[in-house]
Amino acid sequence: MAVYTQISDEALESLTNRFDLGSLVMVKGIAEGVENSNFLVETTRGRFVLTLYERRVKAEDLPYFMELLTHLKQQGIACAAPLHARDGRAVVEISGRPAALFPFLPGVSPKRPSATQCGTLGGALAHLHRASQGFALVRPNALSLDGWASLVAATAPRADSVYPGLAVLIAQELAFLQGGWPRGLPRGTIHADLFPDNVLFLGERINGLIDFYFACTDDYAYDVAVCLNSWCFEPDGAFNHTKGHALLSRYHADRALLPAELAALPVLCRGAALRFLLTRLYDWLHPDSQAMVRPKDPREYVMKLRFHQTALSAVDYGWHAP
Amino acid sequence: MAVYTQISDEALESLTNRFDLGSLVMVKGIAEGVENSNFLVETTRGRFVLTLYERRVKAEDLPYFMELLTHLKQQGIACAAPLHARDGRAVVEISGRPAALFPFLPGVSPKRPSATQCGTLGGALAHLHRASQGFALVRPNALSLDGWASLVAATAPRADSVYPGLAVLIAQELAFLQGGWPRGLPRGTIHADLFPDNVLFLGERINGLIDFYFACTDDYAYDVAVCLNSWCFEPDGAFNHTKGHALLSRYHADRALLPAELAALPVLCRGAALRFLLTRLYDWLHPDSQAMVRPKDPREYVMKLRFHQTALSAVDYGWHAP
Repeated sequence: MAVYTQISDEALESLTNRFDLGSLVMVKGIAEGVENSNFLVETTRGRFVLTLYERRVKAEDLPYFMELLTHLKQQGIACAAPLHARDGRAVVEISGRPAALFPFLPGVSPKRPSATQCGTLGGALAHLHRASQGFALVRPNALSLDGWASLVAATAPRADSVYPGLAVLIAQELAFLQGGWPRGLPRGTIHADLFPDNVLFLGERINGLIDFYFACTDDYAYDVAVCLNSWCFEPDGAFNHTKGHALLSRYHADRALLPAELAALPVLCRGAALRFLLTRLYDWLHPDSQAMVRPKDPREYVMKLRFHQTALSAVDYGWHAP
Repeated sequence: MAVYTQISDEALESLTNRFDLGSLVMVKGIAEGVENSNFLVETTRGRFVLTLYERRVKAEDLPYFMELLTHLKQQGIACAAPLHARDGRAVVEISGRPAALFPFLPGVSPKRPSATQCGTLGGALAHLHRASQGFALVRPNALSLDGWASLVAATAPRADSVYPGLAVLIAQELAFLQGGWPRGLPRGTIHADLFPDNVLFLGERINGLIDFYFACTDDYAYDVAVCLNSWCFEPDGAFNHTKGHALLSRYHADRALLPAELAALPVLCRGAALRFLLTRLYDWLHPDSQAMVRPKDPREYVMKLRFHQTALSAVDYGWHAP
């Protein structure tokens, strides 16, 4: 939830002119999105989301994201592709920040997704992966093994202040993953952060996938593992097999999971849990006085990681052969 | 800008049921309002603002605010009166907080109001004061002389860390105001915080006055002084006489300012400047780790106070007899 940059009246006027939006009816900073400043903008021509990219998103990555969203939209994915200004550009400068304007997508993010919603998400994720197959641009996943090693080094000295024994747990887990990370799985463009926050439902239908700013080139099954982590655990920390089954079976119906992908699920889930544990731990230990967000509790992902360490196969996530 | 409390799916469902709103289309936390959590809620029945009252607004004051807004709306003031739930209540409980639901008012708050907008504001303020005259409830202004004295005591030890000499400046100013604060001016219900942030324009027309949570019973001319402070200074610190003239003359056209009110303007402006200086200074010195807002710079009001200390009469604010 964030508005880091304020927009002057002149900048708003220039925005509506540059994008030919008619006249302004409303601008509200939205308390959403950790990385950027987001504004709901309504004009006589419609409703839009204006995103100002703050320091965590690199300007040189923006063309990748704009191209990706445009490609996915063309492929029928429920996402918002950037509008183009009169001069043809999708990325403009507003208040000294790179910025882009998107059509507004109505919808509500589930706080605690139902099994039905987990199934719908599984289908949407498979659809996203298939739609991304014609997308040629490549962006390495900065938050995979190498990125984790850097975060481990940065967080190790104070990790135990958050949770006793955490430094050892993390070091052992990283060593395990470095030794056993799967190779050769099908890969392509993944969302890499498709938490319930980033999915807008209208009733039982998905109306929008948002916040693609961790999108990168990596294993499709790793994206599935991210979603198992973020959609299928209950607030008490228990994995919900009904939800896991719904997610996996609906994914599989749209894009068949290979035996190698299913076999790798426990390791991929451990990697995904470590990724969110490490970034949350880092933010917890390095609170940003400028940040408008409360850091999320890293311990949630300690519990999830411990569950994955006990998983032997995809069956432990609710999978059974269709 | 703030969302302090998250709302569960169940609470949202219960809200739409209790207020008979149809089904949910969108919920967005709004990065606005320092005191409360605000959500833009869209349903199949329309658009609404849901406000959850956090600790700075006392639950026992809520009936006053709800009655005031309902009264003002009935009098034709552009404000949002609370909706009533099926059980007749305007204040309900959501996520453990007192909460109220209002129709959404479109409009844009000017970041840097024009002279025309200052004039429009002056007329709207006079209209507000006249409309409040039939409102019987009374709420003392907690941020007048007594409140300032408490804030002076709380901020004095570290005031000089913000601005050299500030502790003495404030102590002398408080003593001056305690000696010379006007008595016997016309009084009634005032907004007491009608900054440009709290006024929504559609084009050149005011479509909404919002954030009445400092409203109280005090001198009408003090409300004028708050607006002279917040609407008529330029970013470089200079008072803009054209804007002051527009505000005062349009106010006067709708509610005639008495000679005693005009004579008191410099003192009232000093009091208003001290009030915002003190609350900003307090927030600056006591940053709330839970707050989602960056404290505002108190030094802006040091400069404004210095200007008012040089003012001799209403003429220094652009007033000339109509």
